[in-house]
Amino acid sequence: MMDRLYRQAYQTALAARHPLLVSHPKPDGDTLGAMLAFGATLEAAGKTHTRFCADAVPRQYRFMAGVERVTADREAVGRSSPDAVFVFDAGDLKYAGIEELIRELGRPKIVNIDHHNSNQRYGDINVVVPDASSTAEVVHRLLAANGAIVDREIATCLLTGLCTDTSNFSNPATSASALKLGAELLRRGAKFAAVQKYLFQNKSAAALRLWGIALSRLTVNEKYGLAFTVITENDLEHTAAKGEITEGISNFLNAVLNVPTVLVLREDAGGLVRGSLRTNGGRDVSRLAQALGGGGHKKAAGFTIKGRLVEEQGNWKIKQF
Amino acid sequence: MMDRLYRQAYQTALAARHPLLVSHPKPDGDTLGAMLAFGATLEAAGKTHTRFCADAVPRQYRFMAGVERVTADREAVGRSSPDAVFVFDAGDLKYAGIEELIRELGRPKIVNIDHHNSNQRYGDINVVVPDASSTAEVVHRLLAANGAIVDREIATCLLTGLCTDTSNFSNPATSASALKLGAELLRRGAKFAAVQKYLFQNKSAAALRLWGIALSRLTVNEKYGLAFTVITENDLEHTAAKGEITEGISNFLNAVLNVPTVLVLREDAGGLVRGSLRTNGGRDVSRLAQALGGGGHKKAAGFTIKGRLVEEQGNWKIKQF
Repeated sequence: MMDRLYRQAYQTALAARHPLLVSHPKPDGDTLGAMLAFGATLEAAGKTHTRFCADAVPRQYRFMAGVERVTADREAVGRSSPDAVFVFDAGDLKYAGIEELIRELGRPKIVNIDHHNSNQRYGDINVVVPDASSTAEVVHRLLAANGAIVDREIATCLLTGLCTDTSNFSNPATSASALKLGAELLRRGAKFAAVQKYLFQNKSAAALRLWGIALSRLTVNEKYGLAFTVITENDLEHTAAKGEITEGISNFLNAVLNVPTVLVLREDAGGLVRGSLRTNGGRDVSRLAQALGGGGHKKAAGFTIKGRLVEEQGNWKIKQF
Repeated sequence: MMDRLYRQAYQTALAARHPLLVSHPKPDGDTLGAMLAFGATLEAAGKTHTRFCADAVPRQYRFMAGVERVTADREAVGRSSPDAVFVFDAGDLKYAGIEELIRELGRPKIVNIDHHNSNQRYGDINVVVPDASSTAEVVHRLLAANGAIVDREIATCLLTGLCTDTSNFSNPATSASALKLGAELLRRGAKFAAVQKYLFQNKSAAALRLWGIALSRLTVNEKYGLAFTVITENDLEHTAAKGEITEGISNFLNAVLNVPTVLVLREDAGGLVRGSLRTNGGRDVSRLAQALGGGGHKKAAGFTIKGRLVEEQGNWKIKQF
């Protein structure tokens, strides 16, 4: 059943005049690794194609082969007149960043390759495999069903996707089949040390000093099984750290702390406070986030409220003015 | 070749009057997981035996089945008059904590089960497999060669050893065969979430506040590719954190920081300063440690010197009095 879909998807690429491959905006290792592995396979088959992502590829992913061919130039994509569009790791066309582009292109065939069960099945062909750990794992199954050769570079792209979505074989997406795929990719020569280095050993001392300030303020409410910390605008100014610091800290705390739920509050421009919630317990943190006007998943959610963070007698509070 | 050794080792246990299984002192997840998996297999075969570790089993490992049967009572072990001793994950009998005990026991047969290439081959049977990620992986191969059944509890013990020695599938011991074993153990029902929780999600808020203080002081010497931080006795008093804090911080920094070498200095009782070195670059940190009177491995080393940590104009220094 799936094998037929895998073959249909691959044949669609080979039969197209000009396939377009798409990673979603704010790209992560899975959307990029899956697209680049598929692209390298098309290239090996002599199939000219375009690789698109609406946002620039972050530096940490630029070690993957073929990443330099990913363009954010929508007009160039339009000029190449793609007649088949392959979308990797995106639940709908808006999330993929190509809703408008698809309208401009007339009626290209859409092949939707993903592992999220919430995927909207928006494709002409929907290769959606919810039991896969990652879109990289879906692409690996697709390549295997088509007898494609997984060389060292393709294996490295797929391993990047796999390690991204399993948080390096630690989160609940780490199935037997995910570990078996990891083994297979290492046998194919995947550059494991590079994946570790670029995905995980990538934090600057400035960022970790900010983590340090946040950790040193960690407090626990035992009754609610909640650990809590704050980052002020003042902290951000003093450490010169940039990027997705809050998410990084809440993910880290969730991975090492012996408390089931974590909340990191961070002051943001415009008098806002952003909250990042994580849990590895049975609680559904999206409900708490929703009550505060935010949203997310059961295990990871967030919200934004007006206010400032103020310390009073050793306790941090959100003050609303 | 290896299969013959594996069968010989297992037959030695079944043929003995009373086998003794040994984990090394300061036990980690690998020495314990390997011993407990082997012990559970003997138990399933109806073979009475004793499980020994010179130190008490730390709380974080007590989720493994059969751990309550591990004794630190050397006299009780002597009274059971073991005639075959199985040592797990120890390079020599001194490291195993049983040098004296072995002398007292007369001449028991010794079976040495390990994965370290530096192992002294001190056994009558030496099952030393340097290409294995962990002693747990060696035990898995041994059980497979003997047709033993790996049930859910045994799989959980082996997964604990595997995740311990590969730093949860992240360090260079993470081979294709290590990942394949992980897949196999999950298929056998190994309790992956429990292993994650007890091995990694086990840090107290007090410990992480101390990590925070250390991280907030992180400085980098770009020229030497060295990141550096300090923990004073005063910090230790203020956070009520206990245990192997220094090693934890240096391992963490080595895993996430974009600087190849890490040094954590910590004040200790008696006017001493302990240094913990880690690298993921090409440098051999054991040479630096040796120059300071310490030692260790290429990638992880340590030393102890006399002195106090003093901050002068924003820079931390070791003052020797």
